[in-house]
Amino acid sequence: VPARPITFLSDYGYEDAFAGVCRAVIARIAPDAQVIDLTHGIRRHAVGEAAAVLANTLPYAPEGVHLAIVDPGVGSPRRALAVRVEDGDRVLGGPDNGLLAPAIDALGGARAAADVSLSPFRLERVSATFHGRDVFAPGAAHLARGVPFESVGPALDPASLVASPLPTARAIDGGIEAEIVYVDTFGNVKLSALLDEVRAALGEPVGRRYRVTLGDGREHVIPWSPTFGERREGEPLLYEDSYGRACIGVNRGNAAETLGLAGGTPVTIRPEDEARAPAGSG
Amino acid sequence: VPARPITFLSDYGYEDAFAGVCRAVIARIAPDAQVIDLTHGIRRHAVGEAAAVLANTLPYAPEGVHLAIVDPGVGSPRRALAVRVEDGDRVLGGPDNGLLAPAIDALGGARAAADVSLSPFRLERVSATFHGRDVFAPGAAHLARGVPFESVGPALDPASLVASPLPTARAIDGGIEAEIVYVDTFGNVKLSALLDEVRAALGEPVGRRYRVTLGDGREHVIPWSPTFGERREGEPLLYEDSYGRACIGVNRGNAAETLGLAGGTPVTIRPEDEARAPAGSG
Amino acid sequence: VPARPITFLSDYGYEDAFAGVCRAVIARIAPDAQVIDLTHGIRRHAVGEAAAVLANTLPYAPEGVHLAIVDPGVGSPRRALAVRVEDGDRVLGGPDNGLLAPAIDALGGARAAADVSLSPFRLERVSATFHGRDVFAPGAAHLARGVPFESVGPALDPASLVASPLPTARAIDGGIEAEIVYVDTFGNVKLSALLDEVRAALGEPVGRRYRVTLGDGREHVIPWSPTFGERREGEPLLYEDSYGRACIGVNRGNAAETLGLAGGTPVTIRPEDEARAPAGSG
Repeated sequence: VPARPITFLSDYGYEDAFAGVCRAVIARIAPDAQVIDLTHGIRRHAVGEAAAVLANTLPYAPEGVHLAIVDPGVGSPRRALAVRVEDGDRVLGGPDNGLLAPAIDALGGARAAADVSLSPFRLERVSATFHGRDVFAPGAAHLARGVPFESVGPALDPASLVASPLPTARAIDGGIEAEIVYVDTFGNVKLSALLDEVRAALGEPVGRRYRVTLGDGREHVIPWSPTFGERREGEPLLYEDSYGRACIGVNRGNAAETLGLAGGTPVTIRPEDEARAPAGSG
Repeated sequence: VPARPITFLSDYGYEDAFAGVCRAVIARIAPDAQVIDLTHGIRRHAVGEAAAVLANTLPYAPEGVHLAIVDPGVGSPRRALAVRVEDGDRVLGGPDNGLLAPAIDALGGARAAADVSLSPFRLERVSATFHGRDVFAPGAAHLARGVPFESVGPALDPASLVASPLPTARAIDGGIEAEIVYVDTFGNVKLSALLDEVRAALGEPVGRRYRVTLGDGREHVIPWSPTFGERREGEPLLYEDSYGRACIGVNRGNAAETLGLAGGTPVTIRPEDEARAPAGSG
Repeated sequence: VPARPITFLSDYGYEDAFAGVCRAVIARIAPDAQVIDLTHGIRRHAVGEAAAVLANTLPYAPEGVHLAIVDPGVGSPRRALAVRVEDGDRVLGGPDNGLLAPAIDALGGARAAADVSLSPFRLERVSATFHGRDVFAPGAAHLARGVPFESVGPALDPASLVASPLPTARAIDGGIEAEIVYVDTFGNVKLSALLDEVRAALGEPVGRRYRVTLGDGREHVIPWSPTFGERREGEPLLYEDSYGRACIGVNRGNAAETLGLAGGTPVTIRPEDEARAPAGSG
């Protein structure tokens, strides 16, 4: 039986060999397992960003083992997880800090969970600071080779897992209230609202203009466009990203820099007209 | 029949999972296809830089499928290409914006081309902004598995493809006129002239000194050396890079920063003596 | 016989296709060899940093071929090495500049060495500046396929190899004298002392406080902690990294920036009390 593929996402970066040595550990245990690096460029300790990227991408990945490590609490008593999901023959592995939660939801929910902190498959010597290499990578490699899920560690109640760190969106009077989840490589700003939620609150947005109010009171009027190319160079747009999420971009530019936006900022979106009305009244 | 290898080059960067999810899509369709990442660090939207790197590197790659995505026009009506070349059993895939053109030339020219925008192999839902994941990666994976080239989309006239974006060089009276194509990771400055073109215009350059005049009138006198090590630390040199291209470097330094050079700048190279003559006359 | 895995470490970075074209060359010669990228993010020309990372990580890697290229002397007459080590069926390849030395030591020492500069397996045309592509990658690929070690080039005396560039540590009166080897992705500062050496000089360090004196006279008092989580956010700590090395970190921060530390700096560590005594005396 050939080993199953392993996807791998982390905040290890590319400058040191953090991700590389995890791949070396996997290759030693499961030489024929294909490792698919989703990215190791998650901002350091950005659990929310990682959780969003993981939930977006895993549905595109082959069934197998899904390793995800953004672990600011390594060395503390946080639990180390392996989670079987309902959709497909997939096991997720990573720290119990919410990182896996949105992906588990996107894959039908948790069918079973285990604490792998003391897994029999961990390396002989477990360091205090690098559980990716010593606990998670060897666990993923053994699972890819086909060891039974039950063997990786004591069962946990799936309901006890740390919940998703991702902010949500909510409809408010004449608008939608969201938060900036993270900023991507290109400076595109990811909101906590999905297109479907925008549509439910505001109707079909394409072709309309919105007043975007930031937490500090700054406002930008931005049209909603299906593509960047419909805007002039340097002009901002609201759009649906390729994962169904509402975003703010700038055609051939960097929206986060141009508009002064950063992760964690609250954002309210209202149609331009309704937004003006209160300002003009009184 | 095992799947053929896929090389993959893009401007997706390493911070988000753009390249990673393309690899996930490929692994789902062609689990045994080896994916060789050439680089995903091309500067954003730098079609010319990508075109030069692709043409340089593909001749070193095994036969197979060559995926290249730098796609500022995604969402516009630009065509999406698959191109069979004359040399070897190779198919190139990418947007029709000139990115593939120099590599096609380097591989003997196009034998056949197809528009894969509406390929039967694209994902079920095609987003407006991420054709790498939705169109190009699945097409490459199916080609790697061996589907006939004719099945990927309607045939195009190879003569209709967008031409190379790369500047060329030309011999001028007593010199050669070129342009800076791009600056590499190390700050080495890539010119649009090949060593062969320099040699034809100026004779054998090794061991001679040249006056390099930039578009804004600034001048640098730079010796031509076969290796960096022959110059003192911090000293500039003209040299032939490992792909036969004329370049400007600085021994153990960053030429672009030291000399104030950037992509797109016109550059004239004249032997130091001839260059002085006109300045002294009149 | 399937090809053996190849680990690959370099300072080629991720912006250009330096590492990618080496992988392409390998895939052409040894299509079924798994290539495990340890990292290509070593700082440019940082032979010491690369040597430390290589020695740390190779013991975790499967047996096979270990390619490592940080090669500021490319084009000079420096030798190009292949080295068989005592522990396991492993061959290391890279320039003879000390880069391989600590890893060779960590793997039991050199059993045999060869100069591959003129290896029969190098590419037909060898450039002056890119021996990774033209000499080392094809050599590694042929070794992965199983060519005899003796065929890669003329034998060298292992005792003639360039020695390790890594600084060491030494016990001094009431303390230990070390040097900063390098700073990792997260700003953690790697010292030239191992925990075992600290322990021999100062006793068990965990739970004690140390006066850390830099070469320029600046001093920091820093507690030794087993994990980052035991310190408050922004607070520095001495700790053992996951490879047994003494390091300086800052909980959820960047130690190098916060404390003004850089590679090459001499560092003296003394228990806080003993360190104070001389200051108070006289």
